[in-house]
Amino acid sequence: MKNLDEIIKSRRDTRHFTSEPVPESVIEKALQAGHYAPSVGLTDATKYYLIKSDVIKKAIKNLFLDFDKKAANQTDTAAQKTQYQALKLEAIEEAPLGLVICYDRSVLNNFTIGTVGSNEAIKFSAVCAAQNIWLSLTEQGYSMGWVSILNYSQFKELLGLGENMEPLGYFCVGKPATDYDNQPMLQQLNWKQKSESPSVEEITKVHQKDKISVPEFKTAILDTIHLSEALQYKIDQKTKPTGSLGVLEVLAKQIGEVFQTLEPKILEPTLVVFAADHGIAAHDVSAYPQDVTRQMVANFLDGGAAINVFCKQNSIKLAIVDAGVNYDFSMTSTLISAKIAKGTQSFLQGPAMSLTELQHCYTKGNEIVTAIAKTGSNCIGFGEMGIGNTSTASVLMSVITGIAIEDCIGKGTGVSDERLLQKHRLLKKAIEDYQGSPTLEDKLAHFGGFEIMQMASGMLTAHQNRMLLLVDGFICSVAFLIAYKKNPLILKNAVFCHCSAEQAHAKLLDYLGVKALLQLDLRLGEGTGCAVAFPIIQSAVAFLNEMASFDSAGVSTK
Amino acid sequence: MKNLDEIIKSRRDTRHFTSEPVPESVIEKALQAGHYAPSVGLTDATKYYLIKSDVIKKAIKNLFLDFDKKAANQTDTAAQKTQYQALKLEAIEEAPLGLVICYDRSVLNNFTIGTVGSNEAIKFSAVCAAQNIWLSLTEQGYSMGWVSILNYSQFKELLGLGENMEPLGYFCVGKPATDYDNQPMLQQLNWKQKSESPSVEEITKVHQKDKISVPEFKTAILDTIHLSEALQYKIDQKTKPTGSLGVLEVLAKQIGEVFQTLEPKILEPTLVVFAADHGIAAHDVSAYPQDVTRQMVANFLDGGAAINVFCKQNSIKLAIVDAGVNYDFSMTSTLISAKIAKGTQSFLQGPAMSLTELQHCYTKGNEIVTAIAKTGSNCIGFGEMGIGNTSTASVLMSVITGIAIEDCIGKGTGVSDERLLQKHRLLKKAIEDYQGSPTLEDKLAHFGGFEIMQMASGMLTAHQNRMLLLVDGFICSVAFLIAYKKNPLILKNAVFCHCSAEQAHAKLLDYLGVKALLQLDLRLGEGTGCAVAFPIIQSAVAFLNEMASFDSAGVSTK
Repeated sequence: MKNLDEIIKSRRDTRHFTSEPVPESVIEKALQAGHYAPSVGLTDATKYYLIKSDVIKKAIKNLFLDFDKKAANQTDTAAQKTQYQALKLEAIEEAPLGLVICYDRSVLNNFTIGTVGSNEAIKFSAVCAAQNIWLSLTEQGYSMGWVSILNYSQFKELLGLGENMEPLGYFCVGKPATDYDNQPMLQQLNWKQKSESPSVEEITKVHQKDKISVPEFKTAILDTIHLSEALQYKIDQKTKPTGSLGVLEVLAKQIGEVFQTLEPKILEPTLVVFAADHGIAAHDVSAYPQDVTRQMVANFLDGGAAINVFCKQNSIKLAIVDAGVNYDFSMTSTLISAKIAKGTQSFLQGPAMSLTELQHCYTKGNEIVTAIAKTGSNCIGFGEMGIGNTSTASVLMSVITGIAIEDCIGKGTGVSDERLLQKHRLLKKAIEDYQGSPTLEDKLAHFGGFEIMQMASGMLTAHQNRMLLLVDGFICSVAFLIAYKKNPLILKNAVFCHCSAEQAHAKLLDYLGVKALLQLDLRLGEGTGCAVAFPIIQSAVAFLNEMASFDSAGVSTK
Repeated sequence: MKNLDEIIKSRRDTRHFTSEPVPESVIEKALQAGHYAPSVGLTDATKYYLIKSDVIKKAIKNLFLDFDKKAANQTDTAAQKTQYQALKLEAIEEAPLGLVICYDRSVLNNFTIGTVGSNEAIKFSAVCAAQNIWLSLTEQGYSMGWVSILNYSQFKELLGLGENMEPLGYFCVGKPATDYDNQPMLQQLNWKQKSESPSVEEITKVHQKDKISVPEFKTAILDTIHLSEALQYKIDQKTKPTGSLGVLEVLAKQIGEVFQTLEPKILEPTLVVFAADHGIAAHDVSAYPQDVTRQMVANFLDGGAAINVFCKQNSIKLAIVDAGVNYDFSMTSTLISAKIAKGTQSFLQGPAMSLTELQHCYTKGNEIVTAIAKTGSNCIGFGEMGIGNTSTASVLMSVITGIAIEDCIGKGTGVSDERLLQKHRLLKKAIEDYQGSPTLEDKLAHFGGFEIMQMASGMLTAHQNRMLLLVDGFICSVAFLIAYKKNPLILKNAVFCHCSAEQAHAKLLDYLGVKALLQLDLRLGEGTGCAVAFPIIQSAVAFLNEMASFDSAGVSTK
């Protein structure tokens, strides 16, 4: 029997197995070793599934092939692609035993020690178990290969795993057919060299970031009376009966006032989608699992979501902000990182965020919109993505406006009637149980969402920069409500693009005394209402600048 | 030296340490064990930071205390809260050595094997290293405690870690002061019991969601029911909750059905404005003199009217038809001459037109739309211009539908209340005085307008040519009503673009059982509602063709 060092050193991610079956005793001992791994808060959330069926293996192999092709297309160079395609990265069909290691995130529905900083702790316990199993198999003369090149949602579906059961991957188990010269296979094949020793550094001082002072939201009072009259005169001189372009005339005047000119032009229109996760999502308030937030962010970055299509159609620049998604995204040129934490806490159990985090949201929202204003943009649309954020928005609307919670909730993106009742009960209780101070800031920290607070701050910044500010659906309007409470003057800059099918939204717009441009039964979020309404805003600007006047066209006024 | 099983079994998450320092050799050996852990794609992304400074430890302890308070507030019951607060969950200040294990996600900026399914693989490598270190320390008589109750963003900031460096947590390292009776501390203190054995289950069958296969549709296949199902399936597979694009989804399906394809495209969209004069204008029913009809036609030809601006904005071809204006225009390349006469007669004094003229209108309307279809256009919008034509349209609506005339009139493009009363009196009398036959054709000849009848005929032709047909405001909808009476199937091709401010228009749309896309208080005519709504129609087509599906984007459906 080898000692620990030898076992650790000889453990290999294995892709070549003999066909010899794995004895029950070997896998039992290995899984027991996994079971001895840490289990955060003693939740026992790690679950194991065994696969021996060739039919299932084949189906999983097909999933692999699908994503392996995708991976090959992501290589950095043509040479690398060729080298990549020559690599053997799995042994799904050859390995006699398949193992799926999962973590059950439903344990988070109850209080779990060690997850307040990040609920990833639960996932990490499962990974520790995987490493123990690897070592145990190695010691027993067997090995394992971790296959992660899979579409995880299809993988879950194929295995019939429940909504809360999250797989780490597919693990091929068997007797290794080679020891790769006692080095990682990728090194043996000259893909990369593993460094000899670990990267270690001592940290000797506490770092402190200069605190950015809270952005002050003051607005100069401008002498707009004269300009307003001139705009109205210009509109009335166009070759059309007075007022016959209805809402377009009102919009044209507003835009002229915001930009302080008789010839307004929309420059570099930009739509920013703020994405974040919500602790409340653990309480089954949404029809979708929390993971959909990050999946949709990935979809935004890939260009496949509704908002991508509509922005492209209408020549709107699109920016995606990670305001606090429960996932580590790779750094890409397009994702703006403003992550406050990996999702808020559930306000059923305490404050969603600390006052420091709230402040951090304000700073980030301000920075993001300031940067966009600096690109020369004078028109910014706001959108959001966050599983569970309709619940957050409903509670915020209720506690800020005093409107009863039942009038502030809706079905979100499609929950059932039963879930709606449950949602109502939960949210009502959350509001009743609130014991914090009655100040707005404390309420916002307690019930808020990172994307909503960043949007609210961003809207105030847009107003400071004299930008036209496009408000999307219900959640976005709640962010506007918060900004409005801090500075009611932002109403002058706002265009409400769409009144959603959520009953609460109509009530909120009434509360603000505004009307939306469109009512198209959209209930998607993402800023889609802004993007779809944008051409109508352009129509308002266009008629003001381009239509002939009665005089110039020689048309009788009356 | 213990064997692997013993080491794995005795490894503890430790919170009680002696003050004895950790020798360099011990930590070096442990980190080397970490270094032997998997490193996905051989990226070597795992990084180690050591902390010995009491100042830093104190600052980290403060972060812990902050979040520990937050955690206590999230407990499920009061008793649990008390129990929680009694637990010792860290040894940040006592443990002689602090270790921070991080992963550097900047490696994802280059192609990394094994991360296409989920870039979490990189994080998992670091966790495997943590487990190796834990085992190595255990074997050497030392131990480790994983502290994750921290605000990670503040933690990163305090340590001065770069944006890409993500810590797994703070690890307390030292010689354990107790072995917790060789069981997890939380179990020893009766927080929870760890189960004896792991949860293992064999999966024996492949799970499959029922999928509707989407057959291939070739042009000319007219199996409409099947096509409708396939369109709905395609719409429902887009990465959005079912139905969440509301009216856009209904539109997308309709357009697919009209064009008989799963991938509809709008080609050469064209707007035709039919202009004509009305005998009724002599009776002071309009706010404008009849001459404005020809002035506005001149304005259309010069490019100065609202419809010119909106068509230009949205890349719609514009065609102007002289259906019967009381003026001789010079021949221009852009004005389509289809003049039936120089305006109709006043229906207060007799039939507005003869049956021959009516027939002539049908022929002209058909010729004009046939010619447009031949340019390759599959989408046609209808607009009109004609001083007095609201009166004509009101009477037609009343005599065709049987709705009382008072419900069919409005202020047109801006008459006064007094004039409205006068208009009501006149039109009511005209209907009462009608002594012609009750056939539709006779009524149409008696009360009709040249532009309205040409439009009605053009709409029927558009339907015959499988074109999408865009209906503008009140007058245009009355033309549609006439066409609909002749062939109700044209409803399938029609998109009602705008519900005007004329009360009669809402009643007419109700009569037809349809809803308009926009309500923007427009009351201008000219087809402006079609032109302004057109980008929304394009949005429907765009999402259907360009959005990713759940499958292709790897997004969970529910």
